[in-house]
Amino acid sequence: MRAIIATPDAGPGYRPDEVPDPVAGPSQVLIAVEHVSVNHGEVRYARAFPAGTMLGHDAVGRVLRAATTGTGPRVGAWVIALGAGAWAHRMAVDVGAVAEIPGGMDVAELAVLPTVGVTALRALRSTGPLRGRRVLVTGASGGVGRIAVQLASSQGAEVIAVVGSASRADGLASLGAKEVVVGIDAIAGEVDVVVETVGGVVLPAAWRLLSPGGVLHSIGWASGEPATFPVNSTFAPGAARSLRSFGDVASPGADLACLLGLVRDGALRVPVGWRGSWRHLDEAAAALLGRRVAGKVLLDVD
Amino acid sequence: MRAIIATPDAGPGYRPDEVPDPVAGPSQVLIAVEHVSVNHGEVRYARAFPAGTMLGHDAVGRVLRAATTGTGPRVGAWVIALGAGAWAHRMAVDVGAVAEIPGGMDVAELAVLPTVGVTALRALRSTGPLRGRRVLVTGASGGVGRIAVQLASSQGAEVIAVVGSASRADGLASLGAKEVVVGIDAIAGEVDVVVETVGGVVLPAAWRLLSPGGVLHSIGWASGEPATFPVNSTFAPGAARSLRSFGDVASPGADLACLLGLVRDGALRVPVGWRGSWRHLDEAAAALLGRRVAGKVLLDVD
Repeated sequence: MRAIIATPDAGPGYRPDEVPDPVAGPSQVLIAVEHVSVNHGEVRYARAFPAGTMLGHDAVGRVLRAATTGTGPRVGAWVIALGAGAWAHRMAVDVGAVAEIPGGMDVAELAVLPTVGVTALRALRSTGPLRGRRVLVTGASGGVGRIAVQLASSQGAEVIAVVGSASRADGLASLGAKEVVVGIDAIAGEVDVVVETVGGVVLPAAWRLLSPGGVLHSIGWASGEPATFPVNSTFAPGAARSLRSFGDVASPGADLACLLGLVRDGALRVPVGWRGSWRHLDEAAAALLGRRVAGKVLLDVD
Repeated sequence: MRAIIATPDAGPGYRPDEVPDPVAGPSQVLIAVEHVSVNHGEVRYARAFPAGTMLGHDAVGRVLRAATTGTGPRVGAWVIALGAGAWAHRMAVDVGAVAEIPGGMDVAELAVLPTVGVTALRALRSTGPLRGRRVLVTGASGGVGRIAVQLASSQGAEVIAVVGSASRADGLASLGAKEVVVGIDAIAGEVDVVVETVGGVVLPAAWRLLSPGGVLHSIGWASGEPATFPVNSTFAPGAARSLRSFGDVASPGADLACLLGLVRDGALRVPVGWRGSWRHLDEAAAALLGRRVAGKVLLDVD
């Protein structure tokens, strides 16, 4: 089958190639992948993977073979999946990492949801109730930013969306942001929660805005720059502030189903900012890394 | 009365001077201060305080006037106190920020406990049960480090003490450290909890050692250097890691009493590394900032 694999020593760090079909384990389904999405780190750091690694994590497709354990979706069902090796004609994935797509939904655009949706959902959930809390979303025009703005505002938070330039502010107010701000230095007052997706200078700047007891979720690093915390920046009067890392997308099935329900009910708009064939991955990656995509990159696996 | 006040534009940033006696509010006690201690930041950043600010936070003395609310220690009682303006012949402090010293204790050395004791106690308490957990203490030869080593090991943790040089490792094993390591790069394996007192390059190095779900308490910054986190250093597989700031020494009375009980029962040794008259604060500060004090600086207020 055709798949996009890591090539650490050549080109952009990846290329399409012919590889053997994956073999599904007893608690896995085999999927015929139709649509996938591209996350920032997958193209920026493709070279970090061993040569031949099958890349990609977010897929939508139809079940070709059900799990032999008898659990999970049946053959022919449309599913959304979060797992390794999504950029391929076939993907083998644990039944606990897929969710069946309800009938009547436009399946293609759902492929942008898995990584960003589960990440934003779990970060915000770990914060506790959001009603009445001031939530700052940095890099708000990106894929995970647009999801976080919607998830937080629909749970009653007062959302401040920060973008890097005025041209990237479009549409954020309609997604629920109460304020849309260009540059983090323009923000006045404290915030209770930060969903931080940029890293670099934005991370310590956002940290400085936290109220006593506040939580910063570091769930992206789109800047590609290190983050320098000034001397004593971790001391301030009042209850401890927390910076929480993100690394856990294990067993995402139930959360994928939750996200599908929100989309079906009109409570979550899927942020597709670029769509094309997976044959144009180079072009899509350049647009994504050049910050020219307002939302997520969706690829059709043809 | 005599007190040590901030002088942002002169000398080391502080000097002894004659100032009016403090006036205790209705829920405060007035203390005749006998012994005080010096915390790193109090001398390193003395210039950050407005001119005339009475410095110091940790005191032991006798109650000259009880609170008019009828609560708190009686006149003549020996107390330990955590509050602003400790480096003075008289200190007015909330009854909720003092604890009466049980009879039979050597009162002088207790003056080193308030800030470092409450800070370490509260950081470790917020982590949850410590039995069987691997706890890393950085800057372990300093005052807060020596307290943290003891509090963690006596609660069943496996404590790794990190020091900057071999000459600073003395005595840490006898305080309960299972391993004493020179330089954080020498540590193998993951740790569940970090008590981080150094900042600078040590902070991100310690962060990198955290296990999934681990917690780093940033409660000191003795290096005086900024801390640079590499790109993507907040992502790692597994449950979220947390960095927690420290800023809350509010209402420390009950925790001061807890610390006194531990000392009385032989469960906590008070880490006095330098003792002299408060007239020699300059000399003590130079030793502290030059990392020549193994533990805390204790000053006698004569």
